[in-house]
Amino acid sequence: MVERMTRRIEEMGLKAHVIIGTERTVIAAVGDKRDGEQETLESCDEVDKVVPILAPYKVASRETRAEPTCVNTLDLKIGGGHIGVIAGPCSVESEEQLLTSARAVKAAGATGLRGGAFKPRTSPYAFQGLKEDGLKLLAAARDETGLAVVTEIMTPGHIDLLVKYADVLQIGARNMQNYHLLQAVGDAGKPVLLKRGPSATMDEFLLAAEYILDRGNSQVVLCERGVRTFETHTRFTLPLASVPYLQQRTHLPVLIDPSHGTGIASLVPPMAAAAVAVGCDGLMVEVHPDPSKALSDGAQSLTPKVFAEMMETCRTVASSSGKRLG
Amino acid sequence: MVERMTRRIEEMGLKAHVIIGTERTVIAAVGDKRDGEQETLESCDEVDKVVPILAPYKVASRETRAEPTCVNTLDLKIGGGHIGVIAGPCSVESEEQLLTSARAVKAAGATGLRGGAFKPRTSPYAFQGLKEDGLKLLAAARDETGLAVVTEIMTPGHIDLLVKYADVLQIGARNMQNYHLLQAVGDAGKPVLLKRGPSATMDEFLLAAEYILDRGNSQVVLCERGVRTFETHTRFTLPLASVPYLQQRTHLPVLIDPSHGTGIASLVPPMAAAAVAVGCDGLMVEVHPDPSKALSDGAQSLTPKVFAEMMETCRTVASSSGKRLG
Amino acid sequence: MVERMTRRIEEMGLKAHVIIGTERTVIAAVGDKRDGEQETLESCDEVDKVVPILAPYKVASRETRAEPTCVNTLDLKIGGGHIGVIAGPCSVESEEQLLTSARAVKAAGATGLRGGAFKPRTSPYAFQGLKEDGLKLLAAARDETGLAVVTEIMTPGHIDLLVKYADVLQIGARNMQNYHLLQAVGDAGKPVLLKRGPSATMDEFLLAAEYILDRGNSQVVLCERGVRTFETHTRFTLPLASVPYLQQRTHLPVLIDPSHGTGIASLVPPMAAAAVAVGCDGLMVEVHPDPSKALSDGAQSLTPKVFAEMMETCRTVASSSGKRLG
Amino acid sequence: MVERMTRRIEEMGLKAHVIIGTERTVIAAVGDKRDGEQETLESCDEVDKVVPILAPYKVASRETRAEPTCVNTLDLKIGGGHIGVIAGPCSVESEEQLLTSARAVKAAGATGLRGGAFKPRTSPYAFQGLKEDGLKLLAAARDETGLAVVTEIMTPGHIDLLVKYADVLQIGARNMQNYHLLQAVGDAGKPVLLKRGPSATMDEFLLAAEYILDRGNSQVVLCERGVRTFETHTRFTLPLASVPYLQQRTHLPVLIDPSHGTGIASLVPPMAAAAVAVGCDGLMVEVHPDPSKALSDGAQSLTPKVFAEMMETCRTVASSSGKRLG
Repeated sequence: MVERMTRRIEEMGLKAHVIIGTERTVIAAVGDKRDGEQETLESCDEVDKVVPILAPYKVASRETRAEPTCVNTLDLKIGGGHIGVIAGPCSVESEEQLLTSARAVKAAGATGLRGGAFKPRTSPYAFQGLKEDGLKLLAAARDETGLAVVTEIMTPGHIDLLVKYADVLQIGARNMQNYHLLQAVGDAGKPVLLKRGPSATMDEFLLAAEYILDRGNSQVVLCERGVRTFETHTRFTLPLASVPYLQQRTHLPVLIDPSHGTGIASLVPPMAAAAVAVGCDGLMVEVHPDPSKALSDGAQSLTPKVFAEMMETCRTVASSSGKRLG
Repeated sequence: MVERMTRRIEEMGLKAHVIIGTERTVIAAVGDKRDGEQETLESCDEVDKVVPILAPYKVASRETRAEPTCVNTLDLKIGGGHIGVIAGPCSVESEEQLLTSARAVKAAGATGLRGGAFKPRTSPYAFQGLKEDGLKLLAAARDETGLAVVTEIMTPGHIDLLVKYADVLQIGARNMQNYHLLQAVGDAGKPVLLKRGPSATMDEFLLAAEYILDRGNSQVVLCERGVRTFETHTRFTLPLASVPYLQQRTHLPVLIDPSHGTGIASLVPPMAAAAVAVGCDGLMVEVHPDPSKALSDGAQSLTPKVFAEMMETCRTVASSSGKRLG
Repeated sequence: MVERMTRRIEEMGLKAHVIIGTERTVIAAVGDKRDGEQETLESCDEVDKVVPILAPYKVASRETRAEPTCVNTLDLKIGGGHIGVIAGPCSVESEEQLLTSARAVKAAGATGLRGGAFKPRTSPYAFQGLKEDGLKLLAAARDETGLAVVTEIMTPGHIDLLVKYADVLQIGARNMQNYHLLQAVGDAGKPVLLKRGPSATMDEFLLAAEYILDRGNSQVVLCERGVRTFETHTRFTLPLASVPYLQQRTHLPVLIDPSHGTGIASLVPPMAAAAVAVGCDGLMVEVHPDPSKALSDGAQSLTPKVFAEMMETCRTVASSSGKRLG
Repeated sequence: MVERMTRRIEEMGLKAHVIIGTERTVIAAVGDKRDGEQETLESCDEVDKVVPILAPYKVASRETRAEPTCVNTLDLKIGGGHIGVIAGPCSVESEEQLLTSARAVKAAGATGLRGGAFKPRTSPYAFQGLKEDGLKLLAAARDETGLAVVTEIMTPGHIDLLVKYADVLQIGARNMQNYHLLQAVGDAGKPVLLKRGPSATMDEFLLAAEYILDRGNSQVVLCERGVRTFETHTRFTLPLASVPYLQQRTHLPVLIDPSHGTGIASLVPPMAAAAVAVGCDGLMVEVHPDPSKALSDGAQSLTPKVFAEMMETCRTVASSSGKRLG
């Protein structure tokens, strides 16, 4: 029946997105509005009702799907009452550094492992990551710990390589509007963690997600990691109000990155607790066995010990609202 | 002994601020540094040690006073483990509106009553407040409920009038750098709630507080109420990281205003909970018996019912970190 | 006749602002709109037509007065084809410093002299200005050079003192929304230079001017001095597009302050030339005989020599658009 | 001799960039600093002196090359006393639309033709450009008018296609930190117009250019097109101070895009004149035969007539500083 409707919608020159919920199935028909379409579709027996989606982001909108989406892979669950915790070093630097980090964050309750193998760096002369060697180390760490690997993809040409090793493909803030990259991860069929650009509006953010959803990939996590403002005492300004604001508009889960959002290790634990209190669906936190020796982002990385304490606090806050952390 | 040292400091052409803590007494000597001064002071028997304060804000600095300051008047306690809650309408509009609000916020656990009698309005043609009549209504509401009255002062010329009715003098965001007003409230001897200007840096904010402290008034509450950024989906961008950042630098309590910080009623309760989780010392929330009829700020005002629910959640989050709310 | 209409408008409970142009006289009737009013006024013989002003700023709006306002006092003319140039030190520091500056800027073609006697300073411990002594020096410099004195007023309590010495009262950026101060200068009957607050929107800026105009003072100059953004390489970000944007909406003249707008002396001359090219009605520039020794704003102050060269370039650019500079 | 030094530098594990100026030849040796290197190089007979480059952007820095770079292709000259003018529609829409635009801007004095064939659009549902058909129309317009074609490249996979048709490859603001794309255009050997990201700092902007220069491509134009701030009355805030600021630090030419920088057609001509007065090396302006019917950016596009008038004014301002426009 869904297939029949899909075909009919496509015959009308529209694109059909099938969204199967627990209560009802929605088929989003995206394309230019024409006269008579609504009536034609409504006249089909299988159709309960036809509702125009007012938001510019169609498939991402709560109007299209009322229930929250839970993105999950391995033990990592983000959304729908689960607060996923992705932790690990900024960059993969060595086998030892990565495994030590992975074991520590796993022990503290994380379910995802972050680590950059291809690093977008402001300067061409800065450390650019271990590349494929880094990916191999991430895969090895997953094999040992069971943590889902979350790592950044920088360009469409790397898609085959990344898909081989990663569980979640991360789109960095600098690439939020790199539309060919969004389409490539949309086609790749892996969960995507999409970071908000530092000066992106909410509509721009949701429309970037829509580029991915529009390719048929519905496993998208929105990551708020701070915006660029006149404030310089923190690396970015982290607006936690994004969480409830986005949750009112989209069914996609919203994750907070307090490490980039503040840039200062001592501010990360209180902001992580606040993120849980405001209702976030996940956290992404930089942890390094020895932050003072990190090749990147040392100032904002937690030690394993501080991370474990942070997790304790966050678990208490989460439980007070009936959510599970990690 | 303190008196003797104070005199000696003043004889050296410096200004002395006496700060009596539970563990030790600090006398801040503020003025231009001259050779030999440190040695002279250190040679006094009563002096344990002389420490230069590096921060530009001297009296506000944690270097001067390590313990947190608790600002308190009537039952309102802000800081030092107490989360003060100030709630009420944006503007005082009528006796009924104010009393209904006061009773409701008192019942839900607030210990301070907000309400503008002199309103700084963007347009000269907008409602400017009930002025002295509004102050009288506030005082009457305090008499009935015991709530401490927090209300804005707009100009030094109003100081005598305001002191007669208010328990806490509020300096609005527009006046954060109105230095003559800061000095006037510094001299008035009443607790002051100082709102951060929408584009003030942390140093500017703390130095504005220093203008008040420098007049000998140490009862100052810092209020973060959001900054102006490119974001327009919320009225302001509310950076909760200000709370731990400020608390690391100053002993003054830090209060969050999620109403102005978001401008959207549905975002106020989650942001209030997040503020408590991040470690704030107080909350200031707009509550109106009928927000749709409010003469100002209706869109961001909570109904008494939603406010009471918000208080429940905040109390749970507060207790998980051993703090008392309201 | 104008008097008669004014009286009639006031009898209707409205406020009347009489604006006498070269082509027609406008009486702005400000107050709450009521049924029948427009018809009543239109029926008067003396009334040509009654037009509702849509802009929130009524008297400042081009809808109320189509011709540009020229603010002028002594030889200083700002607006209506005249580009007024106000130059001088940030703070009045000494008789010699001020007179040297005044003579130099006069020689280079300035018609106004700036110099702060009461200085709003971020820190209570910074140099606060020479106060009345500074005002006296400014008046003496005017007596010698004929330059109009432009100096800042910080609080309503200083109004009598300032009026005695100054030709133009400046409202600083920090006080743009200090409404009691705006009303005080509105009542004082002297030309006012109103600086835009560093995060004020255009509507907030024009409504601040409206507070002054609403008291019957129509001699208001709008000064764009840069806004606070994420950019830190310049002190503020100076948006020259404000000039044509404002000129399309208001008849008030628009002046540019490239000194505060950039904070870097080497950027001041090119930005001054650009300001003239974009169509500004005036310039305000910091000049100091020896910037390296200035008590405030040394980094952005020009030497007299560089100022004179800047004036040469600006004059050429101005003449290409048929305007007179200084 | 240059070859010999280059080899020697590479043997030391460094990368050599040869920069041939009129007065001297510089070989920038980029890589990690090691002890003894400076002495080794200085001891070579052919070497005049070895100077460490302090700026993080090495090849882009004025320290490396004192003379301004002039980027030129066909009749388009940007930098070194030439103000290049690139004009045309936002998107290529049809043959007629493009040719009408091209003829008009050529007649008014432009030397470059802009026009998007691959359009980065905020929404996946918006017009995405004519793609290769658009490129063919651009090439045809160049064949007729002689204007250099400037068009955007969105992804490394398009490089072969773009190189076939375009004279200058444009990197859009959204892709300023798409490093693989920067490297791809660095390798392509065509002039590049690099737009500043809407929240990029000056260092980030110059380091993005450095990614291109580091691949051996020295024909890079920096384009300031406005930054994202709290201001919403213009589409972006256009900081003209970027021009002299950048010119003090880099030898690369700096071009202004007043169309995106303001988003409002009536503000484009005054801001273009101001850009010339501030010393820019080029202008990029959207012109459409009928802005009201444009498929994108209609509100900020000039009619051919207004563009021609704007060119007149800009020519006058340019000549007053001894520069040639177009």
